[in-house]
Amino acid sequence: MADRQLDFPTSIGTSDPTTIRLLGQDLAGDLMGRVGFGELAFWLVAGRRPGPGEVRVFEAVLVALADHGFTPTAIAARLTYLSAPEALQGAIAAGLLGGGSRFLGVTEDCGRFLADTLAGLTDPPTDDAGWDAVALDAVRAARAGRRLVPGLGHPVHKETDPRTPVLITIAEQEGLRGPHLRLFEAIGRVHPQVLGRTLPLNGAGVCGAALADLGLPIDLLRGFALLARTAGLLGHLAEERRRPLGMDIYRTVDRNARYVPDDAD
Amino acid sequence: MADRQLDFPTSIGTSDPTTIRLLGQDLAGDLMGRVGFGELAFWLVAGRRPGPGEVRVFEAVLVALADHGFTPTAIAARLTYLSAPEALQGAIAAGLLGGGSRFLGVTEDCGRFLADTLAGLTDPPTDDAGWDAVALDAVRAARAGRRLVPGLGHPVHKETDPRTPVLITIAEQEGLRGPHLRLFEAIGRVHPQVLGRTLPLNGAGVCGAALADLGLPIDLLRGFALLARTAGLLGHLAEERRRPLGMDIYRTVDRNARYVPDDAD
Amino acid sequence: MADRQLDFPTSIGTSDPTTIRLLGQDLAGDLMGRVGFGELAFWLVAGRRPGPGEVRVFEAVLVALADHGFTPTAIAARLTYLSAPEALQGAIAAGLLGGGSRFLGVTEDCGRFLADTLAGLTDPPTDDAGWDAVALDAVRAARAGRRLVPGLGHPVHKETDPRTPVLITIAEQEGLRGPHLRLFEAIGRVHPQVLGRTLPLNGAGVCGAALADLGLPIDLLRGFALLARTAGLLGHLAEERRRPLGMDIYRTVDRNARYVPDDAD
Amino acid sequence: MADRQLDFPTSIGTSDPTTIRLLGQDLAGDLMGRVGFGELAFWLVAGRRPGPGEVRVFEAVLVALADHGFTPTAIAARLTYLSAPEALQGAIAAGLLGGGSRFLGVTEDCGRFLADTLAGLTDPPTDDAGWDAVALDAVRAARAGRRLVPGLGHPVHKETDPRTPVLITIAEQEGLRGPHLRLFEAIGRVHPQVLGRTLPLNGAGVCGAALADLGLPIDLLRGFALLARTAGLLGHLAEERRRPLGMDIYRTVDRNARYVPDDAD
Repeated sequence: MADRQLDFPTSIGTSDPTTIRLLGQDLAGDLMGRVGFGELAFWLVAGRRPGPGEVRVFEAVLVALADHGFTPTAIAARLTYLSAPEALQGAIAAGLLGGGSRFLGVTEDCGRFLADTLAGLTDPPTDDAGWDAVALDAVRAARAGRRLVPGLGHPVHKETDPRTPVLITIAEQEGLRGPHLRLFEAIGRVHPQVLGRTLPLNGAGVCGAALADLGLPIDLLRGFALLARTAGLLGHLAEERRRPLGMDIYRTVDRNARYVPDDAD
Repeated sequence: MADRQLDFPTSIGTSDPTTIRLLGQDLAGDLMGRVGFGELAFWLVAGRRPGPGEVRVFEAVLVALADHGFTPTAIAARLTYLSAPEALQGAIAAGLLGGGSRFLGVTEDCGRFLADTLAGLTDPPTDDAGWDAVALDAVRAARAGRRLVPGLGHPVHKETDPRTPVLITIAEQEGLRGPHLRLFEAIGRVHPQVLGRTLPLNGAGVCGAALADLGLPIDLLRGFALLARTAGLLGHLAEERRRPLGMDIYRTVDRNARYVPDDAD
Repeated sequence: MADRQLDFPTSIGTSDPTTIRLLGQDLAGDLMGRVGFGELAFWLVAGRRPGPGEVRVFEAVLVALADHGFTPTAIAARLTYLSAPEALQGAIAAGLLGGGSRFLGVTEDCGRFLADTLAGLTDPPTDDAGWDAVALDAVRAARAGRRLVPGLGHPVHKETDPRTPVLITIAEQEGLRGPHLRLFEAIGRVHPQVLGRTLPLNGAGVCGAALADLGLPIDLLRGFALLARTAGLLGHLAEERRRPLGMDIYRTVDRNARYVPDDAD
Repeated sequence: MADRQLDFPTSIGTSDPTTIRLLGQDLAGDLMGRVGFGELAFWLVAGRRPGPGEVRVFEAVLVALADHGFTPTAIAARLTYLSAPEALQGAIAAGLLGGGSRFLGVTEDCGRFLADTLAGLTDPPTDDAGWDAVALDAVRAARAGRRLVPGLGHPVHKETDPRTPVLITIAEQEGLRGPHLRLFEAIGRVHPQVLGRTLPLNGAGVCGAALADLGLPIDLLRGFALLARTAGLLGHLAEERRRPLGMDIYRTVDRNARYVPDDAD
């Protein structure tokens, strides 16, 4: 069949025999050695070059999310590397595939919860009392709808997640403590009134709030957690190569397997 | 079965209720806002903190490898996002899975070829003539063994890959133009004598040489290409979300499908 | 830290030096050569051995879902194979990662819609008129909630999906045309009254209905589509190996790339 | 740019508004309910319809390879499901990504070793003594080249892998005990003379030999192990859904993590 005119427009990358263009810039002449990697990642997603303060907040978020020890995703990556060491890309991919709702999804869920709440406001509050009122409504509505408030609570850091105050301070230093962070902080103040107990504002949540304040698209916040985690997974795989644990993890499980008939459920 | 003492030692990350430690540092107090994301990725893999010049070369490599337009991996990621937009991690993983021997593997292959050649030297050369002699032996040996010399040639940049001279200059500026880069440059000078035609030193290859000169483990060089590409894939998926092309790509293929019996092979 | 007693109970597989047990059976003595592969897959998920009629319906579903030509998932698998031919597992995985909400998810969504509707009935209907009334309520409720009715409509098979009547006939022959299929058929009869146009019952939907009538867990119906698609992807990759198309697909896109500044959105 | 004529020929699947064709057959009319799922998978890869004996051997192989308890791939899939239960495709893909050289690769490696050996023969042997001589040469050559003979030895089944004699018997019953299996058996008889100890012929290896005797392409043998394993992974995920172990596995590792400085290596 004769084909119509094909056209695949893009604002990202194109190249010809002498030039590689990325984001409309000359990759070799304008970007390499002049733009940081985090800065480039921001630019690629946002479609605009961030300022230095934005880069600092953004990279602080990536650093905060890069690793959290032997998470399920780190273990899955190590086990995949054990099985197929010749395909490093498969081990990284296996680790990233755990970046779903339960472990890495909180960043995006929290950003979305905050953005949805802000979208319902005609005038944003101007002081803490105003933010507290907005937060109280949002937490009450979530509870009434039996929905969790994302960003509250942590299995290990039961009182304070150390990342939270630090990221808020960095954003404040850079003039980027915007409405999402302010609402998130207000949720931290008011939720005990509704939920009857005090939970910490967790690190994944504060990262979602900070990314949203940077104007990054809510639907892609999970993507930054995945980018950060790629670095963490590389760290785990580098360590697995130097000092393997995967076989020991596998044997720990296999050695303690016990057959049960299915009707024992 | 009663279990023996379990022990999973790691130098990466651990946490307790009040502290998150990463690489032996206090994540919140010492790293967030103080360490760049590229710097952290280097540290995670190398197990040592890089200096500022090393960070500049390393991030220039990541910037160089982040994207190259509509590569097979970018297209695979976009098609996966089209099919399963609710699972961004799957689209990223699908894109990274193309990070194998043919497209992203050159960085690692080139670093390994250079490192293997250097490993065979008792005394490294001290001038260009010396490097040329080493390069000549290496290219001749590869040709005699009918092996490709990785890092030579590019399907689009047939005369010069613009990334190559720029990265060498940056490494020189930072005092990091070491033996891998020098050998790679020498290969660029001498290969026409052996191969009978002049090929450019490509960008993926020079990145492998520069990473090897930074002392990063050869077996993991592909991992940095994957990290860089994660940022590029996020850019493609952000664009796919704003201005979708996946459906059009899919239909272009499907519309031009034609059944042929298998014996027509 | 001293560890408590570890215990990982399973009903699937265990082995000792002389025996491999699977599902409580002796793999070599009782299963190999005596149980079909589809039969085993059913047993593994359902925890019970299916009868011959159940196997016939189940395998008809797998056959129906195995392939549908150049889908986004098949193209993604071929492009990944082009980039990393040494890691076949990566190409299969990349293809399966498109098994999400839009392309392969209909089977599960349809099964769930039918199961949820049936769960709301005190007494299931006994004749077509009764089923039509249930279906009418369900379609009206979906429309009122602005939700799509899964399983209706197909981009290519605009009048009839040829898989639908055939699968219903097979289920009828085997005495397995149960409430999910009956409700699905009723939706096919009544939806024009509510939606104002006649859509075909699609193949992915009827497969979901049939799997649900087999008593398979609704949350895992997508898994059977993935199993079926694994075979289809193997077919595509075998063909890609004999007669490659991936490079041509990639070049078709890349050759028609056109840079546009981002503000052209 | 105006595009040349596009053409994507395929022998697999095409469809038009009223018909879906697969492998040149009418999917609904000729295949559903008439062709088994294993039979279809064979056909898709081989490009020819297998006979009943071939189907029996082929499905026995798939049954043999479907699961082997808590393998690294099964654990990786369960941990991924724990992290992202909403994306079943990601958990399956993560499990399959372990299908590389060490765990699932033996099937392909063994088939290739046997096929390469057979390719070097002018006349295939006609009796066991002849096969033993061929096998002896092949094992000696592997040892001289410091290469492993694939298919020998198993970490659990140290004397006999119960799958091996059963699969040979099934192939014999169906008249499909061909040169790859005969050579494999001969390797089992002669290797102690060369290696100085007796190792069992393992199940993954005998499956590779049987698949090669069926005429399936050597480069894709790993693909059948992946197909089989997809069913096994579905079984694990179904069990994980009914009776979760992933969190317990994760906590077992995380609870026993211990920070060590990197110089403790």
